[in-house]
Amino acid sequence: MRELLRVPGGGGPVDLGAVDPRATPGLPAVAGRGGDRKPWARRQVELVGAGLARQQEMLFATARAAGEPGPSVSAPARDGARLGRGRPGRLLLVLQAMDCGGKDGTVKRVAGAMNPLGLHLRSFGPPTRQELRHDFLWRVRRALPPPGYVGVFNRSHYEDVLVARVDALVPEQTWRARYDQINAFERELTDGGVTVVKVMLHISPDEQARRLAQRLTDPTKYWKYQPSDLDSRARWDDYQAAYAEALGRCDTDAAPWFVVPADRKWYRDWAVAHLLRETFEGLDLGYPAAGFDVERERQRLASGGGDGRGEQQMNER
Amino acid sequence: MRELLRVPGGGGPVDLGAVDPRATPGLPAVAGRGGDRKPWARRQVELVGAGLARQQEMLFATARAAGEPGPSVSAPARDGARLGRGRPGRLLLVLQAMDCGGKDGTVKRVAGAMNPLGLHLRSFGPPTRQELRHDFLWRVRRALPPPGYVGVFNRSHYEDVLVARVDALVPEQTWRARYDQINAFERELTDGGVTVVKVMLHISPDEQARRLAQRLTDPTKYWKYQPSDLDSRARWDDYQAAYAEALGRCDTDAAPWFVVPADRKWYRDWAVAHLLRETFEGLDLGYPAAGFDVERERQRLASGGGDGRGEQQMNER
Repeated sequence: MRELLRVPGGGGPVDLGAVDPRATPGLPAVAGRGGDRKPWARRQVELVGAGLARQQEMLFATARAAGEPGPSVSAPARDGARLGRGRPGRLLLVLQAMDCGGKDGTVKRVAGAMNPLGLHLRSFGPPTRQELRHDFLWRVRRALPPPGYVGVFNRSHYEDVLVARVDALVPEQTWRARYDQINAFERELTDGGVTVVKVMLHISPDEQARRLAQRLTDPTKYWKYQPSDLDSRARWDDYQAAYAEALGRCDTDAAPWFVVPADRKWYRDWAVAHLLRETFEGLDLGYPAAGFDVERERQRLASGGGDGRGEQQMNER
Repeated sequence: MRELLRVPGGGGPVDLGAVDPRATPGLPAVAGRGGDRKPWARRQVELVGAGLARQQEMLFATARAAGEPGPSVSAPARDGARLGRGRPGRLLLVLQAMDCGGKDGTVKRVAGAMNPLGLHLRSFGPPTRQELRHDFLWRVRRALPPPGYVGVFNRSHYEDVLVARVDALVPEQTWRARYDQINAFERELTDGGVTVVKVMLHISPDEQARRLAQRLTDPTKYWKYQPSDLDSRARWDDYQAAYAEALGRCDTDAAPWFVVPADRKWYRDWAVAHLLRETFEGLDLGYPAAGFDVERERQRLASGGGDGRGEQQMNER
C-alpha cells in the first residue's frame, strides 16, 4: 500500500486530478466476491485493527521497559520474546483532508481499533491567541506523542500552508517559507525516532456536496456543519492547488505523503489501516525482555511474595 | 447497577470483605443460558459500548455547539433533535484497583468502545519532581477533561491516600487531611458540571496471584510486571484498609464510589459499561440544535455554495 499510495516524488506540485477519489488501489480481487466489497472491507479493518493494537502494545511495552531501569536479565531463549531494539520509538499519523473528507471517521474506525492507553490524539483548530504569539510549529511540538505512543494529528501544521495560504492569513513570503521549515521540523522528528506517516484523504467535490447535504438533513449531524464550510468549498480549486504544492514540497523519504482515495469510506479505512500495518511492520517491533530476574520473581511469588527485596523500586510504581 | 454497586454510606470504612470479588451482581438470569456467561457478557459490552459512543458524541456535540456562537435557530419540531441543556458537561471515570486489578483492561474494552476523539484519558504514575513541588491535586487539575469530553483517570488522586499512606510517603496528618481536601475538590468539580463516577475494581488475593504468575510466565507480559508488585502484595491488608477508609470517607452523592467485583474480567467490563450507561442516561443528553439557519444553508449548498455570506466565521474553523 505504501508504494501504491505514495505521492510521486520530484518536489513539484502533485497532480491530484490524476487520483480518482472513487478508486480502490490495492484492494484484492477477493473483496469483489459476492458483489459487496463494503462488508468485506469492514471486517478486514477489524482484523487489521486487532493487529495494530498488538503492534501498538509492543511499542508501548518497549518504551515502558526502557524507562524503568532495573537489573537487566535477558529473557530465556525459549521464551521467544524479542529484545527491544534501540531507543523507544513513536509513530505519528498526520491526517489532512478537505471538509467532510473523513478525518473524524478515520480516527474513530482505525485509531479506535487501538488501545486508548497508547494513543495520543490531538486535533488542531484555528490557533488560539496564545498559540498565535508563537511560531506556527510551537503548538505542534507540544502535541507530539511521548515515546511509546501512537500519535494521531487530526489536522496539523499543514493547515499553516493550506488555510493560511488560501485565506491569506499570513503574507505569501511567510507561508512559502514554511515548506522548508516543515521539512526541517519533520526531519528533526524522524531523526529523533518518530516514524511519520502523512495521509491526505482525497474526496471529490460531488462527494463533499453529498456529505454536506447529509449534515444539513440529519439533525444529529447539524453540529458537524458550519456555514464557513461552504466558503471553503467555493475555493475548492485554491485548496487543491495548496494541497498539491504542500504534498509535493513536503514529501520526503523520511516523512512521506500518501493520498488515499476517500469517496468510499470503507476503502478509506481499509487503506489507512493497511498503511499503518505496513508502517508498523517496518519498525520490526517485539516485546521487551524482562528487566528483572524472572526465576527469582517466580520463586518470590510462590513463597508468598513480598519479602522486601524489591523495595528499592517501590516508589517507581 | 448504580444502586447495586454503590458503597454503603455513613462515612466509616467500607467493609470490602463483604464484597465477593467473584460475585456478579445485576447480571440477568438470561446470561446463564447455555452455561457460558462470558461470551454473552462480551457481546453485551459491545452493544452497550456502541450506546456509550453515541452518548459520548452527544456530549461532544453539545459542547462544540455551545462554543460556537452564531445565529441560534431552533431545530424544526419534526427533526426530533433535542436542544442542548445548560452548560456543556463532562464525565469523569476514576479507576482504582490493586495491582492486576484490571484498570488497563477496563480502559481497553470499555473506554475503547468510545470514539478516541472525545476521550480524555490520563494515567497517573508516581509524581514527577515537578509535580512534587506542588500540592497533590495540582497535577490532577491539569488532567481534567475539557467540556464535552469523557475523562478517564487510570489511577488518580486517590493514590495520595493509598500508596502514600501504606508506604508512609507523607506524615499521617498529611494524608489524613486529604480526605476532606479530596471531597472539597470533587465538590468543586461536580458544581462545575463534571459528572464523577469512581470505581474500585475489587479482586481477591488469589486472583492477583494468578495474574502475577501469568505475567511471569508469558514473555509478552513481562513488561507489565515489576518486582515492587510483590512488595505491595505483601501489604495487602494495609492496602485494603486504606481503600476501605478512602471509599468510606470520600463517597458522596455528588461523586459516589462503586465497588465492582473484578475477579471475572467479563463481569467487570459488563458492570463498568452499565455503570457508565446509567450515568449517561442521567445526563439526559441530546444533539444540539443547529447554530445556523438550516434552510438558508441548504439553499446555499444547492445553488453551488460559497457566496461569502459565511465569511465572518471563516477563521473559527
